[in-house]
Amino acid sequence: MINLDRENQHIAILGAGLAGSLLALLLRNEGFKVSVYEKRIDPRETKIPEGKSINLALSHRGIRALEHANAFTPLKDHLIPMNGRMMHDHDGKLTFLSYGTEGQFINSVSRNELNLNLINQAEKSGVSFHFGYKCERVNLEKTEFVVSNNGKYYTHNTDVVFGADGAFSALRKSMLPQDRFDYQQMYIGHGYKELAMPPRNGDFAMEPNYLHIWPRGNFMLIALPNPDKTFTCTLFLGFEGEESWENLTDDKSVLDFFHGNFPDMTSKIPDLLEQFHRNPTSSLITVRCQPWHHKRCMLIGDAAHAIVPFYGQGMNAAFEDCRLFVEMGKEMNFDWDRLLQTFSGTRKKDADAIADLALRNFIEMRDQVADSSFLERKTVDARLHEKFANDWIPMYSMVTFSDIPYHLALKKGLEQEKALIDAQQNNYLSNLEKIKRSLAG
Amino acid sequence: MINLDRENQHIAILGAGLAGSLLALLLRNEGFKVSVYEKRIDPRETKIPEGKSINLALSHRGIRALEHANAFTPLKDHLIPMNGRMMHDHDGKLTFLSYGTEGQFINSVSRNELNLNLINQAEKSGVSFHFGYKCERVNLEKTEFVVSNNGKYYTHNTDVVFGADGAFSALRKSMLPQDRFDYQQMYIGHGYKELAMPPRNGDFAMEPNYLHIWPRGNFMLIALPNPDKTFTCTLFLGFEGEESWENLTDDKSVLDFFHGNFPDMTSKIPDLLEQFHRNPTSSLITVRCQPWHHKRCMLIGDAAHAIVPFYGQGMNAAFEDCRLFVEMGKEMNFDWDRLLQTFSGTRKKDADAIADLALRNFIEMRDQVADSSFLERKTVDARLHEKFANDWIPMYSMVTFSDIPYHLALKKGLEQEKALIDAQQNNYLSNLEKIKRSLAG
Repeated sequence: MINLDRENQHIAILGAGLAGSLLALLLRNEGFKVSVYEKRIDPRETKIPEGKSINLALSHRGIRALEHANAFTPLKDHLIPMNGRMMHDHDGKLTFLSYGTEGQFINSVSRNELNLNLINQAEKSGVSFHFGYKCERVNLEKTEFVVSNNGKYYTHNTDVVFGADGAFSALRKSMLPQDRFDYQQMYIGHGYKELAMPPRNGDFAMEPNYLHIWPRGNFMLIALPNPDKTFTCTLFLGFEGEESWENLTDDKSVLDFFHGNFPDMTSKIPDLLEQFHRNPTSSLITVRCQPWHHKRCMLIGDAAHAIVPFYGQGMNAAFEDCRLFVEMGKEMNFDWDRLLQTFSGTRKKDADAIADLALRNFIEMRDQVADSSFLERKTVDARLHEKFANDWIPMYSMVTFSDIPYHLALKKGLEQEKALIDAQQNNYLSNLEKIKRSLAG
Repeated sequence: MINLDRENQHIAILGAGLAGSLLALLLRNEGFKVSVYEKRIDPRETKIPEGKSINLALSHRGIRALEHANAFTPLKDHLIPMNGRMMHDHDGKLTFLSYGTEGQFINSVSRNELNLNLINQAEKSGVSFHFGYKCERVNLEKTEFVVSNNGKYYTHNTDVVFGADGAFSALRKSMLPQDRFDYQQMYIGHGYKELAMPPRNGDFAMEPNYLHIWPRGNFMLIALPNPDKTFTCTLFLGFEGEESWENLTDDKSVLDFFHGNFPDMTSKIPDLLEQFHRNPTSSLITVRCQPWHHKRCMLIGDAAHAIVPFYGQGMNAAFEDCRLFVEMGKEMNFDWDRLLQTFSGTRKKDADAIADLALRNFIEMRDQVADSSFLERKTVDARLHEKFANDWIPMYSMVTFSDIPYHLALKKGLEQEKALIDAQQNNYLSNLEKIKRSLAG
């Protein structure tokens, strides 16, 4: 049965990336007329260049949102489970740190593969996609926007406009001069570069079911597996300082740096120097703003809250945005004015929390995972969870394997972390009951 | 003697406000060719509308910068000294809180008067002003900018471009999409509205040599004297909540609010209702960003660091920017690339500190000045300064009556405040030596 009222409501979405294509599918499933405008050309007609985007880790929140859109099943074959972190020390010695309990894992997935899949599903369900159309400006008061294509300009007027157009959102740019619009863009002092590790003898060159980490204090290298048996390796390094991009200027300094810090990885990439020079060094931004809406225009996903990639939650948070928005929409019978205001007001604190968590996790990944007292706490953290189940859930598990709102996961996780550190300092880590008591007290 | 090398260097300044006109004068005094572009029409040919800008308090840092430009003497007649805060309670009872020691005061001054004076002096010294020219965009790489006037566009290319164009700077807008440009705009939850208090029987309606405050906890009203014997009163009130702008909707609610909270002030403004409806309610922004420069383009004053007005330091900080910049320029022989980078790198922490101080001072003004334990600490603070001179300078004095870098004033002031609170809690405020010891310990 077609809901004619909804079919007559026209929703425009700026951006056909991950958030935009999933949101389009979800809103189309609710019966709305949905049009998506994307400045890039159709990804189905082009090849994504190498080294332009770090790998993605799909986990519970993202999967739940995809399932909500009936979009998960066709994706299953493209996922590679990662059961935990595999740390590589200077001598190539490996240490394993599980992500959760038995059977809990996150999934390495290609951004491009996932995006193509969602675009195809959304298009099949009746969403109209317009590739090569760049949003030039949005008139927030009129829910009206101008897109350009091949030097021509087109004005569209719809019932609602979503900005799912990423960290450098055009919709957000139109919101910036609005009175009382709070905005922050903040870069971290590190940049990243991707390097591809080819297969070896037709198979993965390292164990595939892990997120590999070379923690080196102020910098790190990570590697995620791909279905074609390659690994995408990403070096995160400071822009300035002793060990930094500015000091990796010639072949010798690059090779010395890699051989000195990541010998076991360097030997597995024969064309490392060529890749190093060819691939860009990119910066890492955190974006916060509020409110996310103005009249009938609404930011969602990275456009509202871009975060650094270290918790593997950017895409998962964006997908969860879409699910929560549509669920709230159903509850409010898509009373747009109330819905946009309420969603922006309630979701913002979770976006802030995952932004903070992602910044914190960079320090954990590049530094703490190489520290024995941290690993001891992680072990006790896991044992407490085994013993007390839902009364003690490690922060990583709350964030990655549950629907607990991010801001509550952060709050509870920090309390638990404090209790663990206190317990460790008082030398009673072996006595789990005392930790529970110290937390309760 | 004309320095031909400098005369051949063309400096463009965007904005003929307070920072722009003083910077123009200072740089012209150094021998450079200086052109100023201002989007508004010449303030000498128009009348500034009422209720558009809160009064300004000129103090040591601003005066020192004006003196550096030989621009202070002609201004002296336009200043009204304010010796301290005069608090009005609900019954009209007055409490006086001195700003500093005997003979220390701040100066109420009209923004418009000051601005006109600086423009005239700069023009006389050879600066060329272009009013009605709006900066549309800046090409940072080429030090090139486009201004529009009456629908026509003009491109200019200069050796250096300064953005002294205020909190909503056009130059900063061009910097925003730059990689690794950190930016934050943050509004507070309060807005303000100005109301003019006319003279009474040909004289000031209240004592003129004070900054009058009606501290009411979550909101406040202040009044500053003007040379025409009026006071400019400013109400700072939350946008939402029980006592807020959104609840002052009709004549009755406005009159009830004023009579209930500020009876002694309300009786002195016969046309209060008319003014209330006529004058705008404006928001209050804090802007932080870094770096302040890109190539040969540089932000200065509010464009680099807009702050809320509660410490009376916005203009003083902008003027100090100009003095410090030119002094650093002389030391570096105006080696622009090094100068811009060094100034941005060193001054930023002081801008952050005064932004924090200004936000803190709102709470002090609207709430703490009505609290007896706060007033007790203030008294001891002043006595410690009498006794220990430069070893103990109250925070307000460091900020207002000294050149101590803002970030050091904040740091030292917080240490002193903590010592005073500790001393108060331990009931030995009468013993000044103990406070000194508690601070040293």
